[in-house]
Amino acid sequence: MNQIMPYERLRAFTHSVFSAMGCSTTDATTATSVLLSADIRGIESHGIARLTGYVRLWEAGRINAKPTISIVHETPSTAVVDGDAGLGLVVAPFAMQVAIEKAKIAGTGWVSVRNSNHFGIAGYHAMMALEHDMTGIAMTNASALVAPTFSTERMLGTNPIAVAIPAGTQPPFVADFATTTASNGKLEILQRKGMDTPAGWVQDKEGNETNDAHILKNGGVMLPLGSDREHGSHKGYALGSIVDIFSAVLSGASYGPWAPPFPAYVPMPENMPGAGLGHFFGAMRVDAFRPADEFKAHMDNWIGRFRAATPAPGHEKVLIPGDPEREMEEQRMRAGVPVPESLVDELKGIGGKFGVEL
Amino acid sequence: MNQIMPYERLRAFTHSVFSAMGCSTTDATTATSVLLSADIRGIESHGIARLTGYVRLWEAGRINAKPTISIVHETPSTAVVDGDAGLGLVVAPFAMQVAIEKAKIAGTGWVSVRNSNHFGIAGYHAMMALEHDMTGIAMTNASALVAPTFSTERMLGTNPIAVAIPAGTQPPFVADFATTTASNGKLEILQRKGMDTPAGWVQDKEGNETNDAHILKNGGVMLPLGSDREHGSHKGYALGSIVDIFSAVLSGASYGPWAPPFPAYVPMPENMPGAGLGHFFGAMRVDAFRPADEFKAHMDNWIGRFRAATPAPGHEKVLIPGDPEREMEEQRMRAGVPVPESLVDELKGIGGKFGVEL
Repeated sequence: MNQIMPYERLRAFTHSVFSAMGCSTTDATTATSVLLSADIRGIESHGIARLTGYVRLWEAGRINAKPTISIVHETPSTAVVDGDAGLGLVVAPFAMQVAIEKAKIAGTGWVSVRNSNHFGIAGYHAMMALEHDMTGIAMTNASALVAPTFSTERMLGTNPIAVAIPAGTQPPFVADFATTTASNGKLEILQRKGMDTPAGWVQDKEGNETNDAHILKNGGVMLPLGSDREHGSHKGYALGSIVDIFSAVLSGASYGPWAPPFPAYVPMPENMPGAGLGHFFGAMRVDAFRPADEFKAHMDNWIGRFRAATPAPGHEKVLIPGDPEREMEEQRMRAGVPVPESLVDELKGIGGKFGVEL
Repeated sequence: MNQIMPYERLRAFTHSVFSAMGCSTTDATTATSVLLSADIRGIESHGIARLTGYVRLWEAGRINAKPTISIVHETPSTAVVDGDAGLGLVVAPFAMQVAIEKAKIAGTGWVSVRNSNHFGIAGYHAMMALEHDMTGIAMTNASALVAPTFSTERMLGTNPIAVAIPAGTQPPFVADFATTTASNGKLEILQRKGMDTPAGWVQDKEGNETNDAHILKNGGVMLPLGSDREHGSHKGYALGSIVDIFSAVLSGASYGPWAPPFPAYVPMPENMPGAGLGHFFGAMRVDAFRPADEFKAHMDNWIGRFRAATPAPGHEKVLIPGDPEREMEEQRMRAGVPVPESLVDELKGIGGKFGVEL
């Protein structure tokens, strides 16, 4: 059962929790905005359902509520940011803003981040570029749950990629996806419903196909986009690897199987080769390539033409990346966000701990 | 049946054909090197098998053998290059070199290209960055053969992405893949062998699943990486779209269903919104992020750890992107390139036309 909560109520509560953890008002506002953007865009797995997880990481001393986030290296179009073990929800917007400022002068800006934590949904950060007439790119590595093609070992996270491209009269193009066949969030939905997964989402610890949505608890792994070699899993494996390398090897964060785990009860990997999680951000000024009006008119044409592509039988229309999330956002800002009763209880527990009422 | 030909013999022949078309010696050398890199790296679909196709495009007046390739717009980290309808095999290395020069000064360089033609394998261009201790990125749009998720219409090309990342003692990481479940080259192999495709590679013109490797001749389409919505085809569709937009909307090339077709007998689309095919290149100096030695040591560690990941039963080892192509290259440079008899005859035909002996 779900309870429908107005956005404002979730906002006030989350802000109070981050403030109680010791975040500055500015940081609490940013972190709340990033975290809840997941709930209103329909990616509930990355939203307020993770608040307890962030609190536990803070209690375990793995999240610094008062970080000094800094640029440790830079060139005209690049920077490396050290997040000082801060909330990724705060470190990521800082780093994306650095990319945007670089792009204003150099045409593009590219920022690799070390010593951070989970940053919510990648799409939020990529979309920060849109109001500046820039294309935004955001990616992050994450706790290892995914086996490379031909392997049974957890070596990569679900390592998402987001790309946001401005348009004119059309809404922007916003792609935001895990580089696995299915996101962890979709797996969690099946777990709650007690349902099996489709073929090609997960593999058991011996490397056999399975439909068991709970297989990760028994040493199983998630599969890269493409599922198996015959269907291009080496491409999903390559994409997840590129995200890992750009986010963590380029910045000095911990990579591959050494990425720090999100659950605070999981011990940190031994011999970590870098500091914390890593992210990678890009901003490209549209008019660094062609006049913005001209580009936007062609993006409108692109989007209009793809939306009008012949639908397959049983489908009403072809979607543009970002359409479902934008429609969800409009609806939930108006009508409220459904929160499962079990999560409401969990949030009340956090509230009790900090003396904050939901 | 194949004939094994030494690389040098193919090189001399191809160089003579490009020269006979009117290319300068420098351009003929570059075009030959790019084209044949596909054959020696085992991506035969993009190599000398396409020479006839390039000649026909030139005969049809769609390829300019003496192009004036120029930078038409630039900022410190970006440029737009107009290929003047030249061979993509020549335009692409020019543009990648511009990206590399930008990166030397600004840290990164990003070049979008219009008015070009097919550029061979994306990996060749991305790998140009390696000797400069840079990460290289290359992508291109292509003739529409792929339907978006929920559609039956050909809207995108197989739009490949290549990313080459330098390492130290390990060979570099080189990913190069079509954003479809299977590449067109793999489909052509099945067509020649009279074999069916695995499920999820292609779809018939009504939008039904099919295993018919010849379905493209009957209005069928290729499917984006992921095959269907349940297995993440919306991610492959998004990736192919990003390649199309970065390559063609950003530069002013022709995009989506209006991308110019490779076969010269296929009429050009009506109302093309831009000029020719588009490409997109990136170069990122490693030391724009962290000292090159430090980065390379961690890349060696990354590659070594992934190569040592537990293999699944029935598999000897986990591969690093670029491993199969590098091994193939070493073998073929030594032992020669297998060329099907039918292709040998075709090449002799071209040779006859230009007075060049194979």
